Amino acid sequence: MRKSGPGVRFLNIFASQSLVYMAKSASSLSFESLAIGIDIGGTGTKYGIVDRNGNVLFSGSLSTRGHCPVENYIDELYNQLSVLVEKAGGPGRMRGIGVGAPNGNYYSGTVEYAPNLPWKGIIPLAKLIQNKFQLPAVLTNDANAAAIGEMMYGAAKGMKDFIMITLGTGVGSGIVANGKLIYGHDGFAGELGHTIIIPEGRLHEGTGKKGSLESYASATGVMLTALEKLQSHDEPSLLRGIPKEKLDSRTVYDAAIQGDKLAKEIFDFTGGILGMALANFVMFSSPEAIILFGGLTKAGDLILKPTREAMEHNLIQVFQNKVKILISHLKESDAAILGASALVWDMKA
Amino acid sequence: MRKSGPGVRFLNIFASQSLVYMAKSASSLSFESLAIGIDIGGTGTKYGIVDRNGNVLFSGSLSTRGHCPVENYIDELYNQLSVLVEKAGGPGRMRGIGVGAPNGNYYSGTVEYAPNLPWKGIIPLAKLIQNKFQLPAVLTNDANAAAIGEMMYGAAKGMKDFIMITLGTGVGSGIVANGKLIYGHDGFAGELGHTIIIPEGRLHEGTGKKGSLESYASATGVMLTALEKLQSHDEPSLLRGIPKEKLDSRTVYDAAIQGDKLAKEIFDFTGGILGMALANFVMFSSPEAIILFGGLTKAGDLILKPTREAMEHNLIQVFQNKVKILISHLKESDAAILGASALVWDMKA
Repeated sequence: MRKSGPGVRFLNIFASQSLVYMAKSASSLSFESLAIGIDIGGTGTKYGIVDRNGNVLFSGSLSTRGHCPVENYIDELYNQLSVLVEKAGGPGRMRGIGVGAPNGNYYSGTVEYAPNLPWKGIIPLAKLIQNKFQLPAVLTNDANAAAIGEMMYGAAKGMKDFIMITLGTGVGSGIVANGKLIYGHDGFAGELGHTIIIPEGRLHEGTGKKGSLESYASATGVMLTALEKLQSHDEPSLLRGIPKEKLDSRTVYDAAIQGDKLAKEIFDFTGGILGMALANFVMFSSPEAIILFGGLTKAGDLILKPTREAMEHNLIQVFQNKVKILISHLKESDAAILGASALVWDMKA
Repeated sequence: MRKSGPGVRFLNIFASQSLVYMAKSASSLSFESLAIGIDIGGTGTKYGIVDRNGNVLFSGSLSTRGHCPVENYIDELYNQLSVLVEKAGGPGRMRGIGVGAPNGNYYSGTVEYAPNLPWKGIIPLAKLIQNKFQLPAVLTNDANAAAIGEMMYGAAKGMKDFIMITLGTGVGSGIVANGKLIYGHDGFAGELGHTIIIPEGRLHEGTGKKGSLESYASATGVMLTALEKLQSHDEPSLLRGIPKEKLDSRTVYDAAIQGDKLAKEIFDFTGGILGMALANFVMFSSPEAIILFGGLTKAGDLILKPTREAMEHNLIQVFQNKVKILISHLKESDAAILGASALVWDMKA
């Protein structure tokens, strides 16, 4: 092709004009497009309105429990979110809704048999939300959403192989290998909280299975360990007399930093089981790092040290002293809201 | 650009001639190109010369043990393979060598701290083979090679999410998710045989770890289970008096089909542990199928039934009755030879 001439010059001018026009559209598009991210946990639901750069512009929360059937929950979610949507410029600015929920299925948009949610059976959550909000909705597992959040904005930025473990009401996980989230054949991959760590161990009330990671490393798991240790020992402890429902990683931490021996034992025991589980996960997908997230991680080295020791102890030589255990540094719950909102940008328009 | 004119016509003619020339090269290339596939197991090594369609044209084997240092083993491998290479048309027809070996690393071409191989430490196996054979060599984990073989020519044809478990001297695995083999951050992903299934369980002599899947579901594992059951029971069994080194899945199978109660218990016990491990793997990557391969699978339903039952028993509801357990139908060891050879076709020329 000739490099100059009147025709070409005309084309060049035209191209420049196009670029200016396109830049304008991109800017107005960016002004218009926001995403709603919803993180549904076993206890609470957090939601936010997020821009493309991962800024959570508005956020709020409601209890996940106490709204049955699921339609009541969605009504309440809609009422609360509508206020924020108006503040953010109205529904017209919303590109869509991304939802992270336990046992959420990316392929079907359903939540299926979630042991930690109040709604049983198969719930077509994405469709229910889409119909109520009149906005496109996409759903994934809550921990998968958190993993996407960490990969885009958090501790896993730039990593192609990592595992995210969320230690909350339940124990969730999101696994990234070869730079992609593992959804598995049916969209349910990454239920590491339900892997069996102690055969015939502690019963999980929600699943009926024995000895799963979640039955030890969840909030309920820590409470049960505390009760067991209080019952099997006679020695004095700051934890004695604390009501059962307040025996969480926070109260155990408060006791441990005051030198309470039994409180420290609870973290050692929990970390021992968590670390053994992490070793198994490492020998599966050999990640660069494991990102831990949630209440239990606030205990810092009290939980991290026994976890790391048990992990290294159970790894074969080729994996030893290679895998980082990192604590998420995203603001509490932001990882999942951000990850859920990130699903929206990936939606086909 | 103008669509016709003498210059363009000349270019078109020139392009056609190039195409003819290229087609000729491709055809002669295909005639010339064969791949050498080598499958190194803890006990034996099998090798073959394979064409692009997965036909094993020539094959042979040697003992992996009894050749130390590793250079002696490679000399012996070279001497044996040279005969086949000549039969197949000489080194000029060989495109390269693909090797599957326990603890083999795809990224570095090394075998590192393999508990089931006679050579300790870090062995630059791909480089040693490349130098001896004067052919490009590429290496991966033996079970990864088998998984590639199954995906290209076997039971996993067309699957994007599956797990291959090899039950031989050791227990190996290759994991495919999103249509790609999981190598992990360092190239060592998929060491499922070393995951801990029974905490503080049976000692694995090679790794020093306790309660790994391999310590129960390998050839040695079955032998140890047989010895334990023979010692802890007084009842008569066809297995009594059989020398320790002959107590393998074959002799246990022979006894079981004759109604030997203790032999059946050995399969029930082994299947129980294998099934629990498989449940954990399913909850990790949610595969369409698990492909089992190796000596133990020859026991058919005697091992498959307890394995399947234990797997389903330990799966949470969302995964139940979904995952196929398939037996590899590729000729013994062909999967790994084929998979190793398939690595060659993927090599950059």
